[in-house]
Amino acid sequence: MKFITYQTKQTLDGYRTGLYYQDRVFDLQTNYHAMLVAKGESDLAYTSETLCPSNPTMFYQLGKVGFDRAKKVSAYVEKTDNLPSYSGDQVKLGPPVTNPSKIICVGTNYRDHVVEMKSELPTHPVLFAKYANALIGPEDNIEKPSVTKQLDYEVELAVVIGKKAKNVREANALDYVAGYTIANDISARDLQKRTVQWLQGKTLDRSTPVGPWLVTTDEIADPGKLGISSKVNGEQRQSSNTDQLIFSVPNLIAFISELMTLEPGDIILTGTPDGVGFAQEPPKFLRSGDEVVLEIEGIGSLKNIVHDC
Amino acid sequence: MKFITYQTKQTLDGYRTGLYYQDRVFDLQTNYHAMLVAKGESDLAYTSETLCPSNPTMFYQLGKVGFDRAKKVSAYVEKTDNLPSYSGDQVKLGPPVTNPSKIICVGTNYRDHVVEMKSELPTHPVLFAKYANALIGPEDNIEKPSVTKQLDYEVELAVVIGKKAKNVREANALDYVAGYTIANDISARDLQKRTVQWLQGKTLDRSTPVGPWLVTTDEIADPGKLGISSKVNGEQRQSSNTDQLIFSVPNLIAFISELMTLEPGDIILTGTPDGVGFAQEPPKFLRSGDEVVLEIEGIGSLKNIVHDC
Repeated sequence: MKFITYQTKQTLDGYRTGLYYQDRVFDLQTNYHAMLVAKGESDLAYTSETLCPSNPTMFYQLGKVGFDRAKKVSAYVEKTDNLPSYSGDQVKLGPPVTNPSKIICVGTNYRDHVVEMKSELPTHPVLFAKYANALIGPEDNIEKPSVTKQLDYEVELAVVIGKKAKNVREANALDYVAGYTIANDISARDLQKRTVQWLQGKTLDRSTPVGPWLVTTDEIADPGKLGISSKVNGEQRQSSNTDQLIFSVPNLIAFISELMTLEPGDIILTGTPDGVGFAQEPPKFLRSGDEVVLEIEGIGSLKNIVHDC
Repeated sequence: MKFITYQTKQTLDGYRTGLYYQDRVFDLQTNYHAMLVAKGESDLAYTSETLCPSNPTMFYQLGKVGFDRAKKVSAYVEKTDNLPSYSGDQVKLGPPVTNPSKIICVGTNYRDHVVEMKSELPTHPVLFAKYANALIGPEDNIEKPSVTKQLDYEVELAVVIGKKAKNVREANALDYVAGYTIANDISARDLQKRTVQWLQGKTLDRSTPVGPWLVTTDEIADPGKLGISSKVNGEQRQSSNTDQLIFSVPNLIAFISELMTLEPGDIILTGTPDGVGFAQEPPKFLRSGDEVVLEIEGIGSLKNIVHDC
């Protein structure tokens, strides 16, 4: 199932929850109701924000219950003709989570990237943060403010938590995952490196695209065996596999959940492989108009344009 | 005006907005309505979550409008007898902001603390993050999980943003502040230092007390001239003045707002002076049962007990 958020182009309303199927967007709540009507269980109360929220934040708060319900709607959509839906050009997709309580990033987590950045192999995951101000969706521009001259891309497998997780063991850590998506951990290298803490280079307003959708765990057998790559203006820059992760997805969830409670909708960016702009010789930073395309096997591609702001 | 959040001890409902005056707690929405009734402007609609929210997050979303309204209620409370209120033992105070979109911490920002930590004087503010999972109020225990053996205190002046701020100039930066409170930037030194990024030692669940109230800017003429101190079990540990800040409150707001949009309710922890447990000889870390009392001139004191969890 491809879970999305979207807004219609006619409105400036907030994002709604939806499903992406065969190039069309299905509103989740609308089709949940259609499914109930078809089953003779019509009750408008069932379509309320309580049971099948159109508000993404409220949807994630339901945790596993919400995703189980969405999967029933997804199965119904796949086998039913003429359900209400939008074509891609009628809507704009948002990030699959619009307002996570945490965006937890992992640094220096690919063997190849650690060598490139001249860092040492970490003994523990290196964690740092972004705030939700940085999030944008798959159809937004990456905003480049004048405060940075060294904006850089980083393709990353993003893990979205589906169920509250505290002191989780590695063996069952994947039970707490809702699904996977692609993130571009945009980094202003000059700001990242001007102090010992990276935060200020990592959370510029509207810098960090996530999407285009959340692919649920039933469609990704092993998040540790996915091809991952990036291109800038058609030129290949990064190309690796998540089998290069120093700390795997289950490692990370177990490690982080010992420190803090993970909530549904929390996003973990698992780190980037070698080939970032900073490490090119000479360095190649992003400029207004550049097109950055990220791909991860089994998920899809995420394309955004850089834009001076 | 002392702005608070509180919950009554009879309920497990979420925190409500309120005012603290002469040792009593006044519900903000209830007394806003009482004020309107007294003025002959009674309209129940006026007491709705839209105009004078009891929900702290919704209150902060109003920005300056909300605080202006609360100040009118505060003036009314001060001059009127027999308004509905609670004694301190009927309620439990929460952190003045319960769910900020950002908690931005500043490291190595007191001249004396920089010397103590053997750090270099920073050329730019060192920023790092906590997530809202870390927040607790003035009547909560500081939770010490077994993952750390080196829990430490840090008294800090906390600035709470009152108005959306982007690219603010230093000269008018204080216009964007709702008020000031006290924070204990609890730090697990062993976790903070096991990688190059401090986040994992800074955002343990329910570790970080903030409060006891927000003192609005009209009562603090200059946030750069406040005595600031901490005691553990009655023993003085930190004693300094915010005139030791390397980057002042207006500096910090201007600097941060160039990087990211500050939203109402965002909290900036401005750094801690010398005397932390880590720097004692030998180091003195917090143990279950320890009482940590922080004081800042013009705000008050914040007392919490450490508790193994």
